[in-house]
Order: sequence, then C-alpha cells, then structure tokens
Amino acid sequence: MPAVKTRILGIDPGIAITGYAVVEYTKSSYDEDFDLITSGSIQTDKSLKSPCRLLEIHNDLEFLLEKYTPDVAAVEKIFYFKNAKTIMPVSEARGVITMTLRKFNLPIFDYTPLEIKQTITGFGRAEKCDVKQMVEIILSDCNLSKLDDTIDAVAIAICHARMNI
Amino acid sequence: MPAVKTRILGIDPGIAITGYAVVEYTKSSYDEDFDLITSGSIQTDKSLKSPCRLLEIHNDLEFLLEKYTPDVAAVEKIFYFKNAKTIMPVSEARGVITMTLRKFNLPIFDYTPLEIKQTITGFGRAEKCDVKQMVEIILSDCNLSKLDDTIDAVAIAICHARMNI
Repeated sequence: MPAVKTRILGIDPGIAITGYAVVEYTKSSYDEDFDLITSGSIQTDKSLKSPCRLLEIHNDLEFLLEKYTPDVAAVEKIFYFKNAKTIMPVSEARGVITMTLRKFNLPIFDYTPLEIKQTITGFGRAEKCDVKQMVEIILSDCNLSKLDDTIDAVAIAICHARMNI
Repeated sequence: MPAVKTRILGIDPGIAITGYAVVEYTKSSYDEDFDLITSGSIQTDKSLKSPCRLLEIHNDLEFLLEKYTPDVAAVEKIFYFKNAKTIMPVSEARGVITMTLRKFNLPIFDYTPLEIKQTITGFGRAEKCDVKQMVEIILSDCNLSKLDDTIDAVAIAICHARMNI
C-alpha cells in the first residue's frame, strides 16, 4: 500500500479561546507518521459582545481553511451535563465553527473528551499533563509549550487519525 | 417630530425551524404604525447533519438580509434552565444567526420570552394564543395563520419597537 497523507484540522471550540491544529498524518501498510503543520488559538476580546466574537472566530477560521486546506476536520463534542451557563456560549461558538467547516465542504467528525483521552493515552480519565506528554511523544516534539486548548486541538486531530483513518 | 421608519428583523432561533419577520415601524410624536413586510420560517431537513442545517440557516438568513435590508435585529434570548439537551442545538443555531447578523453590521438586541410576552400582552406568562391575538390587533391583520415560530418572530420585532425605539 502506498503511503497516504491526510491533513487533519483539530478544533477545541470556545468563545474566548478556540484551539486549532493542522496535523498531516501519513499512513502506509508498515508505518504511520504525524507532522504538525501549524497550531495555535483564536482568541477573542472579552470586552466585545458575543456576535462580534463569533464573527472573529468565523473570519479567522476561514483564513486558516484557505491557508492550510485540510482534508477533514475533527471537533471536540460538548457534554450537556457540564455547567449549564457555559454550554450556551460554547455551543454558539461550536455552531459557527461547524457551519464554517461545512461551507468549505469538509467532512466533520466529533469526538468526546473521553474518546480523545482514551485514544491518546489509553485511559479515558487521563489528566491534561498525561495527554500533553503523549502528544509530545507521538509528534516527536518535546517542547510543545502551548495553551491547553491548543494541545487539546492537536490531541483531537491525532484521535481522528487513530480512530477513523 | 417627523415620522421615523425603522425596519426591524425579528428572529426566533431554532435548528429545525427559525421564525423570522420583517416589520416596518413608523413613529411620530402623535402616532405609531406597524407594517409587516414579510414573515416566514427557515426550515431545515431533519435527516441532514447539524453543520449542513446550520449552513442552510446561514445562507437563507444572508438572502433575507440582502433582500429586505433591515436596520436592526431583535433575537429571542435562550434560557439556560430549559431542557439541557435542547440548549445545545438551539445555541448552535443562535450563534450562527447572531454571527451572520453581525457580518451585515446590524445592531442586535436580545429579549427574553418573558419580556416579549410582557411587552405584547402586558402579562409575562401569557399563553401563545394571547400573544397571537395581540399581534393580530397590533398589525391590524386578523388572519395571521402562521407557525408559532413565525408569530414569535413578529412578536419579537414588535417588542423591540416598543422597548427600544
């Protein structure tokens, strides 16, 4: 089997911080490889009203999609039993994000935090530091000193590669 | 004071049905008048996945904004203590809607169901049929045989005129 490259956009949605990562996954019959193309976060100004912040997320995501042309997107699923007050702004951001991905005709996959942790570390209730450590090992990058949301976005992209490619 | 016309877009957000209404409100020092320009609903196909449905809402709303060029938008606010499972899809739709309104530089106002009912009927816990009846009286249109979501959108637009113009 010849090596197949898939460019995965991982996203951890939020109204204040949306983590993102573009990971290129190469798979052949005897090997797999992960290459981190870019990662970072879309941060919006707390002093702005929600529609302005959502428009910033939409515009920045469009820029990323045009620049990095991913093949597929993997987005963290929100649990409804989290704090009810935070569900609404996160869901609003998630709605804008998945709509924008769909506008670019990307296939979209959802993963729960439990699935992501399970896939990365082998343990669904792993701590954030364990996930970070495993992401560093998988990417052969021992200095991934990033925001939690960005690490989570990388983990989501890796989770997609492991579960669905 | 010369009569001032304001074109208000009222929206009742939902993933399956988003009610909308464009109401032209004319106010002078001695009189006020409401004129229903259009009303209806954006309905999305249940068999489609959420991002596709959100993109339909975004595209249809852009079409309405280009066609009817409202001056201001009034959107129903969601209560977080409603059924937690329904909060997420409604919030996703609401995020896409407010982002799209912002993209068109519209000022956006939020009203709770209680504020809307209170403003229309004088009673915050009014029934749907009472709201419908009052909307018909205000618009001088006794045959407003529409979906609940569309009536709600008209009520939201009237609420904005009464509360903030």
